[in-house]
Amino acid sequence: MSKPKVFEKPAGVKDYMPEAVSKLRHIEYEVLDCMERWGYSQIITPTLEYYDTVGMASSTEDRRLFKLLDRNGTTLVLRSDITAPIARVVSSLLKDEPLPLRLSYHSNVFRAIEAEAGRDAEFFQTGMELVGDASSEADAEVIALAVACLQAAGVHTFKIALGHVGFLNGLLSERLKGREEAQTELKECLLNKDYVGYRDKLKSLNLGSEAQAELEGLLRLRGGEEICRQAQQLTADPVAQEAIEHLCQVWSVLEAYGVSEHVSIDLTMIGDFSYYTGMTFEGYAADLGFPVCSGGRYDNLLGQFGRPAPATGFALKTNRIMEVVSKGPAALPQCTLIAYTAVNRTHALRSAMDMRASGGQPVETRLVRDSESWSVEELASGAYRVQGKLYRQVIEFL
Amino acid sequence: MSKPKVFEKPAGVKDYMPEAVSKLRHIEYEVLDCMERWGYSQIITPTLEYYDTVGMASSTEDRRLFKLLDRNGTTLVLRSDITAPIARVVSSLLKDEPLPLRLSYHSNVFRAIEAEAGRDAEFFQTGMELVGDASSEADAEVIALAVACLQAAGVHTFKIALGHVGFLNGLLSERLKGREEAQTELKECLLNKDYVGYRDKLKSLNLGSEAQAELEGLLRLRGGEEICRQAQQLTADPVAQEAIEHLCQVWSVLEAYGVSEHVSIDLTMIGDFSYYTGMTFEGYAADLGFPVCSGGRYDNLLGQFGRPAPATGFALKTNRIMEVVSKGPAALPQCTLIAYTAVNRTHALRSAMDMRASGGQPVETRLVRDSESWSVEELASGAYRVQGKLYRQVIEFL
Repeated sequence: MSKPKVFEKPAGVKDYMPEAVSKLRHIEYEVLDCMERWGYSQIITPTLEYYDTVGMASSTEDRRLFKLLDRNGTTLVLRSDITAPIARVVSSLLKDEPLPLRLSYHSNVFRAIEAEAGRDAEFFQTGMELVGDASSEADAEVIALAVACLQAAGVHTFKIALGHVGFLNGLLSERLKGREEAQTELKECLLNKDYVGYRDKLKSLNLGSEAQAELEGLLRLRGGEEICRQAQQLTADPVAQEAIEHLCQVWSVLEAYGVSEHVSIDLTMIGDFSYYTGMTFEGYAADLGFPVCSGGRYDNLLGQFGRPAPATGFALKTNRIMEVVSKGPAALPQCTLIAYTAVNRTHALRSAMDMRASGGQPVETRLVRDSESWSVEELASGAYRVQGKLYRQVIEFL
Repeated sequence: MSKPKVFEKPAGVKDYMPEAVSKLRHIEYEVLDCMERWGYSQIITPTLEYYDTVGMASSTEDRRLFKLLDRNGTTLVLRSDITAPIARVVSSLLKDEPLPLRLSYHSNVFRAIEAEAGRDAEFFQTGMELVGDASSEADAEVIALAVACLQAAGVHTFKIALGHVGFLNGLLSERLKGREEAQTELKECLLNKDYVGYRDKLKSLNLGSEAQAELEGLLRLRGGEEICRQAQQLTADPVAQEAIEHLCQVWSVLEAYGVSEHVSIDLTMIGDFSYYTGMTFEGYAADLGFPVCSGGRYDNLLGQFGRPAPATGFALKTNRIMEVVSKGPAALPQCTLIAYTAVNRTHALRSAMDMRASGGQPVETRLVRDSESWSVEELASGAYRVQGKLYRQVIEFL
C-alpha cells in the first residue's frame, strides 16, 4: 500500500476549525448545563475499554468496533457509546451510591467504517442515564429532558417519536410463536422503515386473517395520544398490553411536564439498540432525514456488570445537531489588535493585559518594527484589515 | 491470558467522577477562555492519525505510541500530542490563512505504558500554538500567556524555568566537536537533572581546563536576569551567543508584560521534546515535583508538513494542575428535591421546570407513591437527607 501524504488524515475523522468548534462547544455547554439543572452530574470515562467487558456489552456491531491489543495481548476497543461504560462505573466506582443515579456526559465515540461509506468514524454524543428507577415517571423525565436539551442546543423545530419494544415483541411472539426467523425479518423491515417490505413479508407468511389484520394494523399505530387506546384494542397479548399501559402512563406524565406537543407515538419504532427493553424514542429535527437524538429503557444491561438495576437514558447526536443549528448572525470580528513600536512596548502590553482582564474581548498584540511598512485598511463593514486578517478595532501605540 | 473482570478497565486509564469532572472542566473552561481573550481560536483534531505522518512527526517515542491498523492495513496512532496534528492542519485546511495563526486546544492524548508503571495512558492537555512569528516578542507572548493561564486555572504559586536549546547546543558542539556520543550523554544527564552525573561525565572526557570550566560553568547558569550577562561572558561560540541574545530580548518583553517575577532562567534545561529549536520552558507549581506546563519554539516541524514556518507554543498538563488546585470550600449540596404525589404531579413538575429555567439551581423531582414510607432528615449542616442522598432543599407537594 502507498504511504499517506503528510496532510492526510484517516478516513471518517475530522478536523474542526474555529467556527465549527464554537458551535460544537456551544451545544455541549448548553446541553450539559441543562442536564445539570435537572440534577444530572457529569462523568468522564476512558477512550479505551476492554473488548470482553464494555466492548461486548455495547450495542455496536462487532465489526464496527475499533480494536487494538494492549501489551499483554488483551483486546481493547475505542468506546463506541457511553452507556456501557456508565453501566461499568455504576457497578464499580459508584456501587455504594444510592439509586436512583443521574449521570450525564459529553464524549467522542468511535465506529469503524468502510472507507467508501463517507460516514463518521469518530463523532460526539451528549447524553444522560437515569439508573435505578423503573417507573413511567423516569421514562417521562428522560423524554422531557431530551426536549429541554434540544431546545437548549438551539433546535427549535423537532418531533420526538415514542415507541415501546414490548408492544411489538408481544404482538409478534403471540402471532408468530416459534417462528423466530420471521419475527426477526419483520423487525428488520421496521428498523429500516421499510413498510412495503413489512407488508410483503406478512403476506408471505400465510397467517390467519385475524393475525394478518393485527400485524398489519401495527403500521397504523402512529400518531398522538389516541394511539394508546387504538393499540389497547388491537391485541389481547398481555406483554403488549402491559407495554401499552406503561406508554399511556408516560404520556400522561409528559402532559404534566407540558411537553407532549413535541411527542408522537410510533409503535412501529423499535430502536436500533439490541439492549432496549422498554420504551424507546428518537428525535427528528425539521428537514433532517436522520435522528438528532435517541434513547430508551435498558433494564438488563446493568446486571451484566454485576449491579442489576433498571435504567433509561438518551444521547444527543451532537454532530447532527451542529448541522441544524443556525450559525447566528455573521458578526463583526471580535478581536482588537494593539500595534506598538518597541519603545511603547510596556505601555501597549499592559494595556492589552488590562483589556483582557476587564472587558473579556479578545486582544492580540503586534510589534511593528521601524523598518516595516504598516497599514490598516478600514472596510465598509466597519471592520479593519491588517495584513490579511480582520479586526474589530485597531489601537496603535506607534 | 485470563479475561478481564466485568468492572475492570485497561491499565493507565481513568474514570472521572462528578467532583473530579467539575474540577477538570473548570480548569478547561478558564484556560480556554483566557486563551480566547489573548486572540487564540480553538480547534479540535481527530483522535486517530496516520502513523506515517503525525505519528512520526510527534515528539513521542515510538514504543509509547498506541498503534492500530485500519481496514486497508495502514497503521494509525492515537494522538500523543496536539502539536503535530496542528502542524498538519496549518499546512492543509488553514494553508490559505495569513500568518501569524493563534490556535488553542483542549484534548486527551495517549501514551502506551508498561502496566506496572502506574502512569497515565490517557490524559488531558490544554494548550496553544503561535505559528508564523519567529520573534522574541512571540516567545514572550507564549510565556506570558502560560502565566495568565496558570493563574486562570487557579495555580497561585508557580515558577517558570526558561532555557534555550541553542545555547547548550552551541556550547557542546564548540567544545566537543565530532564527539556526538559525549554530547548526547551530557544532554541526557541534564534532561534527567542529574548534575552529579554531568560533572562525572565531564571529568571522564579529559577536556582542556578551559573547556572543562566552561561546560561546568553551565551548571551555575540558573537564576534571574543576571544569568543573561553571565552566560554572555561564559562562551564566545556564535550559536550560543545568538541564543543568549534572543533570551535576553525575551526577558525584556516579559518585563514589559510585568510577569518576569514568575520566570527564572535555567540554561541547563533542554526540554524533553526533540523538536524544540529555540527557547524552551517548564512551569513548576509549589510542592509538585513535576512540571504543570511545558513549551518552546519548534521552527522545523511545520516544514515537515509542507508549510515551513516558525512556531512556538505550550501545553498545560491539565491532570497535574487538578492535583494542585484546591477544591474550594466543601459547600452544601446544590440540588433541590421536589417530592410529589400523583395528584400533584402537574403542579410539581411545572414548578421544577420554572426553577430550572430561572434560578439555574439543579432540581430533581420524585414521585412519592401512596404506599411508600416517606421521610426527610434534616442534618446539622443544614442539608437534608432523603433515602441516602443529600439535598440543599426539599419541597413537598404531598
